[in-house]
Amino acid sequence: MTAVDLGPLLDELGPDAVLVDPDRMAGYRWDRALDPGAGVPLAVVRAGSTADVQAAVRFAAARAIPVVTRGAGTGLSGGSSAVDGCLVLSTERMRRIDVDPATRTCVVEPGLLNAEVKAAVAEHGLWYPPDPSSFEICSIGGNVATNAGGLCCVKYGVTTDYVLGLTVVLADGTAVELGGPRLKDVAGLSLTKLFVGSEGTLGIITRVVLRLLPAQRRPATLVATFPVLEHATRTVLDITRVLRPSMLELMDRASINAVEDVTRMGLDRKAEALLVVQSDEAPAAARVELERVASICADNSAAEVLATDDPDEGEAFVAARRMVIPAVERRGSLLLEDVGVPVPRLGDLVTGIAAIAERRDIEIAVVAHAGDGNTHPLIVFDPADADQAARAQAAYGEVMHLAIDLGGTITGEHGVGRLKRPWLGDYLGPDAMALNRRIKAALDPEGLLNPGAGI
Amino acid sequence: MTAVDLGPLLDELGPDAVLVDPDRMAGYRWDRALDPGAGVPLAVVRAGSTADVQAAVRFAAARAIPVVTRGAGTGLSGGSSAVDGCLVLSTERMRRIDVDPATRTCVVEPGLLNAEVKAAVAEHGLWYPPDPSSFEICSIGGNVATNAGGLCCVKYGVTTDYVLGLTVVLADGTAVELGGPRLKDVAGLSLTKLFVGSEGTLGIITRVVLRLLPAQRRPATLVATFPVLEHATRTVLDITRVLRPSMLELMDRASINAVEDVTRMGLDRKAEALLVVQSDEAPAAARVELERVASICADNSAAEVLATDDPDEGEAFVAARRMVIPAVERRGSLLLEDVGVPVPRLGDLVTGIAAIAERRDIEIAVVAHAGDGNTHPLIVFDPADADQAARAQAAYGEVMHLAIDLGGTITGEHGVGRLKRPWLGDYLGPDAMALNRRIKAALDPEGLLNPGAGI
Repeated sequence: MTAVDLGPLLDELGPDAVLVDPDRMAGYRWDRALDPGAGVPLAVVRAGSTADVQAAVRFAAARAIPVVTRGAGTGLSGGSSAVDGCLVLSTERMRRIDVDPATRTCVVEPGLLNAEVKAAVAEHGLWYPPDPSSFEICSIGGNVATNAGGLCCVKYGVTTDYVLGLTVVLADGTAVELGGPRLKDVAGLSLTKLFVGSEGTLGIITRVVLRLLPAQRRPATLVATFPVLEHATRTVLDITRVLRPSMLELMDRASINAVEDVTRMGLDRKAEALLVVQSDEAPAAARVELERVASICADNSAAEVLATDDPDEGEAFVAARRMVIPAVERRGSLLLEDVGVPVPRLGDLVTGIAAIAERRDIEIAVVAHAGDGNTHPLIVFDPADADQAARAQAAYGEVMHLAIDLGGTITGEHGVGRLKRPWLGDYLGPDAMALNRRIKAALDPEGLLNPGAGI
Repeated sequence: MTAVDLGPLLDELGPDAVLVDPDRMAGYRWDRALDPGAGVPLAVVRAGSTADVQAAVRFAAARAIPVVTRGAGTGLSGGSSAVDGCLVLSTERMRRIDVDPATRTCVVEPGLLNAEVKAAVAEHGLWYPPDPSSFEICSIGGNVATNAGGLCCVKYGVTTDYVLGLTVVLADGTAVELGGPRLKDVAGLSLTKLFVGSEGTLGIITRVVLRLLPAQRRPATLVATFPVLEHATRTVLDITRVLRPSMLELMDRASINAVEDVTRMGLDRKAEALLVVQSDEAPAAARVELERVASICADNSAAEVLATDDPDEGEAFVAARRMVIPAVERRGSLLLEDVGVPVPRLGDLVTGIAAIAERRDIEIAVVAHAGDGNTHPLIVFDPADADQAARAQAAYGEVMHLAIDLGGTITGEHGVGRLKRPWLGDYLGPDAMALNRRIKAALDPEGLLNPGAGI
């Protein structure tokens, strides 16, 4: 391997935009999946514009250098961990946003955080719904690249439902504008949608046009505990058959206890499951909706049901739900899963995960966007204990196979990244896999965009 | 050109499934765009299953015969008109549906009509929202192939927002299953979304998994008339900035008069515009929402505002709106346009269309899904009057260029088909066009799937 002369890139982008110092580059090698296989990049490009991205991609393409794009580095599947000798293309400096209340859209660069998008549009009385649990630290570009979900998805859909247009830099450095602030547009193929969720493997997103909604009403909240897990999952099913809550989350006993350890807020440690349900209907209608939820909970032998239309009291329970991952993280290192199943199989999935935990003698806490059938099993292990780490790794694969067997997916909202790629073929099957590869080959024939990740 | 031996196809599918009689094939040559350039097919295959579609596609692929897929033949852009020597692949006999209330999804074959889907799921208390004006006669497969819209889209989105999975037969006859009844799934590229709206150019859809919602509440309705068109379009903008009505439609004076000619329901013939607005919030909230709409109408000098929560009375106004196309059709042949703009440009679009009508000395009535910025200018002409027909054709192109100049699209919900293809490059620009073609070439390298239509 011959040394690459970075001179032309430095000349074009300036020294501030190109990091080569190993210490400074270290912060760009991993995302939150902490992939042990992360490589050492040749350089980190901190692009400031679409033109910068084009220059970096052209530089890389001419030299057959891989390009790994990263936003805020909060990915949980290793989709933005570096590969040896790559350019890491960071969008962290691309942070402009332009909100247009008249079209109820905004144009935003990929480096802005989800929470910053929410805040900027809220100034105009508008709302950007998708809300990954990491919304305060994850970038909108990463959200688009992974088609991120969140808690409100059960009623308001996922990231792709809000993306009207993109600017994308292709593998040869061409920048293409797709879609725009038009609410309906069927001219040409649905390429905007193709790039959403493509994990940096088809092109690099440099600009996003987002559809916005009027501000959400302040929701009313219901919390219910269940002595028996299956009663909680049956409750979820009974709710989603007839109602459209704006949140429907589940915590299992391990999650409840981990949160209670931290918060001492008085959660019932013996409950096998806790549901957090919200309604953002108009106040009277929200009360009716939560009364119906309460009645469904009671029919399914809930131990305790508490409903409140006090937003602060409700927010305390949502905060408890959001606390699950950090709380469980105190118990060890995590392998954070993201499997989803059709909602009727949620109970089978959660009990199957408990069986895997028992068989592998390992702790797995489960928190779920239950209304979507999307669960986050949190596999806890001590990285210093090689045997336990190996059992955790085995459980990680077994949970995915369990999901596949139940008609589910290996990833509902985090992406395939590098960590889940070994299971992608098992999930998609050979024909769909071949079709994915055909599209990839058409758009990135040299395979330089995020190699080893996603498809 | 050598004669094609249809024997193997007849042997495989049986004589009932393969029509070759010119009289019987005549009904499969055109869709509702009545493309004068429609060709004469080699045969019409009335497939009964995915396997039938695979057999037909393999037969065609082996002989380099083009395949034009059609559902109910109600397309308005000529996307399913035949080309000479093609196989027309009709999905009209593929009509199975399987509703699963537990997952709130259904699996449906492409030949079932939109209204039949709505009816089948309604039996389970569920709702399939997308509602093209032609919903009683258009097929769900055609809806998916064109990413069809409708009246409720302003609140509930378009077809793609409800498609969770597809079975697609590719150009080589392989059948691929994409997605499924999982509400969140990011494993692999977003290929389901890519096929939605691809107008039969990438593959043939043989099975659709649709997401459903609980039954819609019966909406309350408001109708407002405006002496000045611009006041109505400003009203639309003022409404969409702050509210989410479940319907927001506009009729211009020509549409109002055409409907009044037929219905004699007492519409104000002098009004330059009429808005039909619905709210499907819970009753008390709907009243509040429509009071806000009424107040916005009054602020914009509406002549008359009528609100009702009587569903039948409201439905009469929606029926008037749905009557526009048939009513205007009584005045001559139609070139039915489908241009859309960002909502703030709606006024410029509608007044610009009026200027084109005047300059070309031709009648153009406008009806619009106003809340989406999506308009249907109906260009009226007498096909026996060659000069008028030529002026109508010229106006058709000018309306598209006007939309492009206003930042809009040449088609919001009908598709490009064959009629709009000459303008697609002007709209997309060379880079996006090249990207479209690259995907097309990757999936249909011989160009046999619906040649001349869509991309």
